[in-house]
Amino acid sequence: MACPVRHSLNMPDGDPLEDESGMLYGEYLMLDKVLQAQRLLSEKHNQKVHDEHLFIITHQAYELWFKQIIYELDSVREIFSEILEETETLEILKRLNRIVLILKVLVDQVMILETMTPLDFMDFRNYLKPASGFQSLQFRLLENKLGVKSENRVKYNKDYTKVFGNDEKALERVIQSESQPSLALLVERWLERTPGLEVEGFNFWGKYQTAVNLLLEEQRQIALAVPVENLREYRLNDLANRREVYESIFKPDIHEALLNRGERRFSHKALQGAILITLYRDEPRFSQPHQILNLLMDIDSLITKWRYNHVLMVQRMIGSSQLGTGGSSGYQYLRSTLSDRYKVFVDLFNLSTFLIPRAYIPPISSTARTQLSLWRNGKGKVLEENDSKNGLEIEDNGFEEDIV
Amino acid sequence: MACPVRHSLNMPDGDPLEDESGMLYGEYLMLDKVLQAQRLLSEKHNQKVHDEHLFIITHQAYELWFKQIIYELDSVREIFSEILEETETLEILKRLNRIVLILKVLVDQVMILETMTPLDFMDFRNYLKPASGFQSLQFRLLENKLGVKSENRVKYNKDYTKVFGNDEKALERVIQSESQPSLALLVERWLERTPGLEVEGFNFWGKYQTAVNLLLEEQRQIALAVPVENLREYRLNDLANRREVYESIFKPDIHEALLNRGERRFSHKALQGAILITLYRDEPRFSQPHQILNLLMDIDSLITKWRYNHVLMVQRMIGSSQLGTGGSSGYQYLRSTLSDRYKVFVDLFNLSTFLIPRAYIPPISSTARTQLSLWRNGKGKVLEENDSKNGLEIEDNGFEEDIV
Amino acid sequence: MACPVRHSLNMPDGDPLEDESGMLYGEYLMLDKVLQAQRLLSEKHNQKVHDEHLFIITHQAYELWFKQIIYELDSVREIFSEILEETETLEILKRLNRIVLILKVLVDQVMILETMTPLDFMDFRNYLKPASGFQSLQFRLLENKLGVKSENRVKYNKDYTKVFGNDEKALERVIQSESQPSLALLVERWLERTPGLEVEGFNFWGKYQTAVNLLLEEQRQIALAVPVENLREYRLNDLANRREVYESIFKPDIHEALLNRGERRFSHKALQGAILITLYRDEPRFSQPHQILNLLMDIDSLITKWRYNHVLMVQRMIGSSQLGTGGSSGYQYLRSTLSDRYKVFVDLFNLSTFLIPRAYIPPISSTARTQLSLWRNGKGKVLEENDSKNGLEIEDNGFEEDIV
Amino acid sequence: MACPVRHSLNMPDGDPLEDESGMLYGEYLMLDKVLQAQRLLSEKHNQKVHDEHLFIITHQAYELWFKQIIYELDSVREIFSEILEETETLEILKRLNRIVLILKVLVDQVMILETMTPLDFMDFRNYLKPASGFQSLQFRLLENKLGVKSENRVKYNKDYTKVFGNDEKALERVIQSESQPSLALLVERWLERTPGLEVEGFNFWGKYQTAVNLLLEEQRQIALAVPVENLREYRLNDLANRREVYESIFKPDIHEALLNRGERRFSHKALQGAILITLYRDEPRFSQPHQILNLLMDIDSLITKWRYNHVLMVQRMIGSSQLGTGGSSGYQYLRSTLSDRYKVFVDLFNLSTFLIPRAYIPPISSTARTQLSLWRNGKGKVLEENDSKNGLEIEDNGFEEDIV
Repeated sequence: MACPVRHSLNMPDGDPLEDESGMLYGEYLMLDKVLQAQRLLSEKHNQKVHDEHLFIITHQAYELWFKQIIYELDSVREIFSEILEETETLEILKRLNRIVLILKVLVDQVMILETMTPLDFMDFRNYLKPASGFQSLQFRLLENKLGVKSENRVKYNKDYTKVFGNDEKALERVIQSESQPSLALLVERWLERTPGLEVEGFNFWGKYQTAVNLLLEEQRQIALAVPVENLREYRLNDLANRREVYESIFKPDIHEALLNRGERRFSHKALQGAILITLYRDEPRFSQPHQILNLLMDIDSLITKWRYNHVLMVQRMIGSSQLGTGGSSGYQYLRSTLSDRYKVFVDLFNLSTFLIPRAYIPPISSTARTQLSLWRNGKGKVLEENDSKNGLEIEDNGFEEDIV
Repeated sequence: MACPVRHSLNMPDGDPLEDESGMLYGEYLMLDKVLQAQRLLSEKHNQKVHDEHLFIITHQAYELWFKQIIYELDSVREIFSEILEETETLEILKRLNRIVLILKVLVDQVMILETMTPLDFMDFRNYLKPASGFQSLQFRLLENKLGVKSENRVKYNKDYTKVFGNDEKALERVIQSESQPSLALLVERWLERTPGLEVEGFNFWGKYQTAVNLLLEEQRQIALAVPVENLREYRLNDLANRREVYESIFKPDIHEALLNRGERRFSHKALQGAILITLYRDEPRFSQPHQILNLLMDIDSLITKWRYNHVLMVQRMIGSSQLGTGGSSGYQYLRSTLSDRYKVFVDLFNLSTFLIPRAYIPPISSTARTQLSLWRNGKGKVLEENDSKNGLEIEDNGFEEDIV
Repeated sequence: MACPVRHSLNMPDGDPLEDESGMLYGEYLMLDKVLQAQRLLSEKHNQKVHDEHLFIITHQAYELWFKQIIYELDSVREIFSEILEETETLEILKRLNRIVLILKVLVDQVMILETMTPLDFMDFRNYLKPASGFQSLQFRLLENKLGVKSENRVKYNKDYTKVFGNDEKALERVIQSESQPSLALLVERWLERTPGLEVEGFNFWGKYQTAVNLLLEEQRQIALAVPVENLREYRLNDLANRREVYESIFKPDIHEALLNRGERRFSHKALQGAILITLYRDEPRFSQPHQILNLLMDIDSLITKWRYNHVLMVQRMIGSSQLGTGGSSGYQYLRSTLSDRYKVFVDLFNLSTFLIPRAYIPPISSTARTQLSLWRNGKGKVLEENDSKNGLEIEDNGFEEDIV
Repeated sequence: MACPVRHSLNMPDGDPLEDESGMLYGEYLMLDKVLQAQRLLSEKHNQKVHDEHLFIITHQAYELWFKQIIYELDSVREIFSEILEETETLEILKRLNRIVLILKVLVDQVMILETMTPLDFMDFRNYLKPASGFQSLQFRLLENKLGVKSENRVKYNKDYTKVFGNDEKALERVIQSESQPSLALLVERWLERTPGLEVEGFNFWGKYQTAVNLLLEEQRQIALAVPVENLREYRLNDLANRREVYESIFKPDIHEALLNRGERRFSHKALQGAILITLYRDEPRFSQPHQILNLLMDIDSLITKWRYNHVLMVQRMIGSSQLGTGGSSGYQYLRSTLSDRYKVFVDLFNLSTFLIPRAYIPPISSTARTQLSLWRNGKGKVLEENDSKNGLEIEDNGFEEDIV
């Protein structure tokens, strides 16, 4: 029953197929390896703790799914770095959606581990020292490949050499994952190529700025007409604030400043692409890109939710001041990873700030519509632009190697 | 981040503990084995199919959790076969509840595999032949240990020698799992020992029969008083039907007949115990036993739900008449496993049939309450009674061996 | 906190907006109505049963969501009956997906009601007689609007006049929902218009038949070459079976016979469209239609899952033979609604039967690709074809009325 | 089909019961009220926005479930304030568990509302001004009844008079909910009465302190024996830290200081009770109380998770700096409610800090076990002790009134 889709191959009694060579279910899944990898340290110490088995199985299940997520992530990154025809966009959609579904199961899985109570855990946790969770190589790779940047990590979590120090291969994979283009970077480049951004073409950004100014001016007129003075004041104040917000995307130097402070991540151009896609998501051309943006936010949200569930469980399991020392306690450390610094696509979450009512959105003429053809090839063109900026290069060799 | 509860052991910079010997996270979890057990057959055939990776990971995750369920099941069976103090009942509760949570995740996990579309699957399924899902040794063990009986399986699924024929160890484990007392059997014996059933004591069964008869008689009087004839007739008919239903538990020979037809599973005495527990579930003494009965139903329901989700997915993946031949097609076979025959605790689901309104439930005097002390030891006493009936014996050696 | 998206309107202290007129949260949501509609019958009878409150709230929550589902369903049906530009397909996708999410919550919600135990329920269910669940007008409407046909209902569930007999308006809505084109019918017509089916054009059906025949012939050659006799026989037999299956869609008379037996639902042409979409789902043109087919299956699956969870709960709550009489018992009745007869899109689930490996799928030339333009207008064209067949007509008046 | 448990009452054709008077399903559920409370403001303004319907239904579903949670909460508070026999503890367990299940559905429900995109929302949100989410009376009541204290609220959220200013009844209910004993307070008093705390009895606290001191001393000896100096130093330092943590519960004045700083909530005595229950959770006597503590944490966690999902959705819907001004923006405000200040049972989460390994837990002799009888009556005894401390009084009148 374990294999839900193989039943069509079941054969009736007296099946002549049994002569055929081939691989049995358990052999195919290499279950001899997978199901013999549960070794209770407490048993080795002759004080078997029943719940250690659950502890091991849960973490192994996590790691299996991490591997699948990384597998999908690598394939998505590879597609993103090539020409993006719509057929491929569809494949990206499918795989990002799969990652989302896996993350949902991972979030739910926390509940299973919660059935282990603190007293049970205390019974075997001493045997494990100094094995430690933040040694999960795959989770670190996953974060790096998504685009969690080293400079955004809490100091405590930055230095991996100590953690994987003895494992050269692991170290190499970490370093490689940091040097290769992350999903966030590839998405940024893809957004920069959004059709419609060309100044001598649809010139979206110009039209958008005009529309916003119109909107703000109309609202200023309405505000000025309010008879009650303090209400009028309030309204005008509010408008001034909103204008300031818009200027943060209109004026490149403000955007740059926010980038430097780490409050924004995407380049100015990429942000424009994201706003374009969000405003025109009902155009068939931008429907799939819009779904991609949504899935990227889902992934960010779910990883944060997972961290959050973790924080709650760790607090339950070991309390919030186990060691009494501020920074190094598990709970305090984990809580700090909940901040927006660990959110890779934080700019997408903030896009709503810049939306304008449908009536103000610049219309697309049918001639313009045909202009908005395929995304441009990412490899040649965009690399030139970014070379200097990021100092990053997608070398075909290294990249492919990692992905395949 | 993978390990949610180990963070307390993380050490600040300059950690002097790094001198200490101990096991690293990946080493402890034997990830070298677990994460190197994914081998794509399609890749071996030089036609790599992206989605085969998902297929393998999903099934391995299932198998990991099956192992955990079996582990908990064995421990629960061991406790059930011993004296049951309340402390132990609590442990049973915890572990059954854990099985329930795991099954819920397994049910949800089906959705991940569903992201593989039929066309994708078609691309690599030929490489697998004749590997087949019902070769999952662990699922077969799980069913046997729960108490799915060989005679209730569809014919097609009975003969395991063909499936595991080449793997002697596997065969041995299957045979052992069939010969040892299943959870269903141990629960049955435990129910037979329910305090309060003793005729020369609280004599629950006698009191219950009196109460039912009183209830039916009162309702007959009410029915007889109905002025409209056809309504009166209807009511009386209905009552006659209900009386018949009750007689199926009052008359041992009817119960026996239902047992033989496979419509009941529990012995007459066990059924009495289950009814007692359900009626007195608000008594502290019976609160935990009642929760156990509920969890057993949950397990049965969830396994059926899992089978059901499977059926829907298989129908989606391979259609409902792939081979065009009735019995052997995957969909038709799976659909047949949804019947009540595969439900181990079907009697518990039907208990509601025999409930009576609170006002009619025989009261427990405070003297009686003290009589309802601990469950009797299952080992000595009950085995005598059942020896002849089931021809089964819990031999300490064999049993313990399997469980530990 | 209840309103998650209104917080931007919260004002700082000394908010001058308080002068403004406008609607308060509770007023907007008409909470005076919604939150005063809980009236415990047991309380009226001076024997308040705590759990009746849960019973009422749960059912009201179900009905609220039913209303939302019907609302989305009506809007989707309206779009389907008009020209379908890609922009609109996107809207259909969004709304079907919303229905899917709602159904998932409804499935989960069953667990809340399960916390009411049979004994609790017994305490107040007598007050309700003869209020009965299958009187839910909205669920009946929902089924009809989806396309559950009267002739496929179990006899017992057919006659609604008795159920809604006293409520003329309700009766009228039921009749209207049966006479208007259901989602299933509109989807069927839309599938019949799938671009690529035209014989004097891409001629998909001709090409597909050629491909299938090629595939079967190749496999026959392979089978004939098998040296072991009984294995060869088995293979040839299997192939004969598969050929028979394919003939069920190649020969219109067999298809017609299956339609009459109720084993198929879609017209021959619609089935062809569905197969086309499934095979070419990676083409941008068919990506959204393919997603629509998937969502339709999701809806069918989830409604069946919901029915199934119900069956399990009802069995738990009232047992499986409450009245002792076959057909009329709640459990037996509900179980019967699980059959494929209640599945509206059963043909979609069976599509996998007719898939062929990617290598055999007829390629689309780039000239053909441009031919596969917009779906044709459903209103004019298709109605002519179907007029005689179904005797149904989408009259603008009646239809619009119902939908708006 | 809507009513899952009423099917047993369905009658066969020719049902003579139709003569009987009684209430129909829709009438019983007052669906005429519930299903006619959806009024789209956008429709009134002749610019119907499709998605406003979803917005209304979702919020009404939330409010229905809020009502159910408050209903269960009130009943649980009533039971807690009386003598607590084990039968009643069981009832508390059942109802808290029900609240947990409801909260889980509420958390999932957020996903449905997320299908409304920011642009859709923008289309109708202007009609709503100044209706605002934090005007949900019931959510405010729910928080107050749980025990969120006014002084812990962010300033912005404190002043409800402005929000409910025009609705006298609402205002009255808020004030009442603040003056009556919250669940947190009643749990605190119940914990203070934990059997085993009496100094002249089992004297748990004395024994526990002895055990902790023994444990720390042993570990000090081990640390002193470490040969490497900096490792020895580290260990001793760590131990000093841990000793400090324990002193925060050993020394009443430190505890008092933490209370005043808002880092602890429970009285010193209540904390002792909670520790006792957690350490002896395997004793049948403390099994149910321990489950209660777990459910209370679940409730706290789920409400925080719900807030958290909200924050993510609001960020997605309106961005994080809509108004550009720090404190008053929706996102910033909501984020601030995620802090531990809004967690009512934060002390329970931190209990793990004070656990000790099983081997050090003071054993309970069988004579002691019988001493640990029923919880004392909460009403008389405890009120005296607390009178002066909290200035709160459970007046029978007021309290009952609110609850019934």
